[in-house]
This record gives sequence, structure tokens and C-alpha cells, in this order.
Amino acid sequence: MKIGMLGTGMVGETLGTKFVQLGHQVKMGSRTANNESAAKWAAKNGANAAAGTFADAAEFGEMVFLCLKGDVELDVVRSVGPKPFGGKPVIDVSNPLDFSRGMPPSLTICNTNSLGEEVQKALPSAKVIKTLNIVNCDIMIDPNKAGTQPTMFLCGNDSAAKAGVTTLLKSLGWTDIIDLGDITKSRATEMLLPIWLSLMQTLGHVHFGFKVVRP
Amino acid sequence: MKIGMLGTGMVGETLGTKFVQLGHQVKMGSRTANNESAAKWAAKNGANAAAGTFADAAEFGEMVFLCLKGDVELDVVRSVGPKPFGGKPVIDVSNPLDFSRGMPPSLTICNTNSLGEEVQKALPSAKVIKTLNIVNCDIMIDPNKAGTQPTMFLCGNDSAAKAGVTTLLKSLGWTDIIDLGDITKSRATEMLLPIWLSLMQTLGHVHFGFKVVRP
Repeated sequence: MKIGMLGTGMVGETLGTKFVQLGHQVKMGSRTANNESAAKWAAKNGANAAAGTFADAAEFGEMVFLCLKGDVELDVVRSVGPKPFGGKPVIDVSNPLDFSRGMPPSLTICNTNSLGEEVQKALPSAKVIKTLNIVNCDIMIDPNKAGTQPTMFLCGNDSAAKAGVTTLLKSLGWTDIIDLGDITKSRATEMLLPIWLSLMQTLGHVHFGFKVVRP
Repeated sequence: MKIGMLGTGMVGETLGTKFVQLGHQVKMGSRTANNESAAKWAAKNGANAAAGTFADAAEFGEMVFLCLKGDVELDVVRSVGPKPFGGKPVIDVSNPLDFSRGMPPSLTICNTNSLGEEVQKALPSAKVIKTLNIVNCDIMIDPNKAGTQPTMFLCGNDSAAKAGVTTLLKSLGWTDIIDLGDITKSRATEMLLPIWLSLMQTLGHVHFGFKVVRP
């Protein structure tokens, strides 16, 4: 499958590299076509790895991942505009973290709205799916790294798109996947960030996750 | 130990009954000294169970539990005033749920403040501890009912009070208890309510919990 990755940070690179290893073609998008870290990443990852602008990556993908910092994501999505995203599954991995008041960050949007919903509003034809945003990127691509595998949540308005993303999640090793419902459920998963950040501080590492235990 | 329980709802009664069974003396507090459900509960639970006003229960307890609806908790605490709570451990089990906009509820306070912090401000000498608020009351008193036992969080400003509450949690069967830090960490645990409510809807029952899986 052709996958567009918007964002050349640690999350975008980790997921992009894993998707290439799984046999997908990945185009990494950034602000400029000649972004240095995207070019380096593409050079290192062979023929199935390429770099381009955000719009190039969105245009390229049959699925598009948003791995952007929460505070710039909506600006990037709006500047690219809905057209390159078309009616594709757009997987929003970002969180609305606000570091402007210091550590720990608070959320810029929460409770009665979410970043996932705002992305869906900015891209009305796209099938926005919120997932993977509740774990560190090492766990995203290797859920068993947490010892016991955590639960992964996803939500979005389109069932077929969610089925496709579920298949992709399974290919990353995820086995306990819960579909929470429509994109408004992004509120629930983005609001896991405060406990995630508290636990990072308490446990002193990022290789943990949340398992929904039930009878 | 003498335990004061403020709130005669399902949570207060479930915890109160369990504490009596564990050999503690429990006074259930409500708005009026002759509350019918509190009187019934006391009659049913023997010599170690009693009923009284909110102030009576707070005065009675060496530890005081707040098992009130989130939308009335601060009013109750302020109307009782700090004196009966003294410098005791006050365990806040409530959540700031706002049902006024329909289902699912949102939170009345979150992100940069929490109900736990507001209770601590209302009772400056008390040692407020937030815990148990992230599971249904059946799980509170029987954590293994979730199949695998979930993780329980607690937070508060006083280490000795947290140690005492940890001992009490252990007596309920909790084995994986994480101290998140001071009372501001209530934000993190109260913000678990949206995912809890989503999961209740998705799973169709309330006997689940969150296990922090880590290597």
C-alpha cells in the first residue's frame, strides 16, 4: 500500500520505517520538498521510501498518517487543504499538547471537543481515524515491548476505513483493538494524555501502555 | 478504624458495607440525620454501622470518604466546613461529571484544575487523597472481578496519609497501586472518565478497569 506520512519527527520516522519494512511504499512529507531529515530517512530506507512536501505525501498515500505536533497540526492540514487527502483514511496520531505553560503540558482542546474532530472538520471528505496516540512510538510498532500488550483504541465515522486501519494495526502486532465509535471519541483517547504523562514521570520511562482488563 | 462515609448512594453503601465486613466502624452521612436509606443501611449492617449527618460522619471518621455526586460535592464539603474534617485523610472518590448536556457527560472541571484540588482548597488542613474514582464500585471492593486486576492510582499532598490509604486499598485486595504524586494529579485520573464512559458503552458493562502494563 502507498502510505503518506505527514511529520518527520520521531513518530513519523518510526512508523514510516516500520511500514517500509512491512513492504509498503512510504512518502514522508514536510514543510519543504528538500527537508534534510526526510531526505536522510528516504536515503536510508531504500526504494520504497521517498520524501516530499506535506501535499506530496498526502497526494501519494492511499492512507495518510498525521504525525505532527498538536500545536501545528491544524495549520498544516488547513494549509495543504482537503484536496490531496480526498476521501482517504487519514490517521490522526497527534495530541493537542500545550507546552506553553511549562511541564506537564495541558491540552489545548478537550472535554467537549478534540483535535481528531477538528481534523475531521478541516477535511470533511476524508475518513479521519484517531488511533495510536496513546502510546510512545516504540510501542506503536511493537506493542509487546510493554511486557503485556496494551489495548489500542480507534475511532472514526467510517466503518470501512476503520476496518482497513484495524488490519494495518494487526500487521504492527496489535491484537486487543477496541473500536470506540465515531470521531467524537477522540476526546476520550486524547484525554488519556495527562495520565500518560504522569506515569512517564512516575515510572521513569515511556514503554508502558493501558490494558483494558475485563472478565 | 473509624470511617466516615459522606454519600449514601451506591458507591458509599458498597464501600461502607465492605469496610464493616473488614471490621471497621462506619458512620454513613447524609443531608439529614434521619435519611431513610442510611438508616436502612445501618440497621442491616449491625453494631459497627451507624448513620448521621454529613458533619456527624466527618467528625466520626479517622478517615473520611467523599462518595458524593460530582455536581454537589463541593457544596456539601463547604456547607460542613473544614472543622469536622480536621487534619484527617479525606478520600475523594467522586468525579466532576456534568450530565446537564445529556449523555455522555462531560467534565465540569478538567485539564488545568480538578475536583480533587478544589476539595483540598475547601479543606486546607485535611489530607485529601484522590483514589478509587476510576472504577465501578463493584471493582473498588473486589478488583479481581475485572478478570485481571486493574491498576489503582492515588495522589495527594501528604505521604503518611497516602501510606494509610494504601494499606486500606490493599485490604480491599488491590495489589498494583501507583502513587502519582500530589493532588494536582487528580486531573489525570478524573480525565479517565471519558474513556471509562466510552468503554462502558462499547463493552456493555461496568466490570472493567485499566491495567498499566509495563516491562
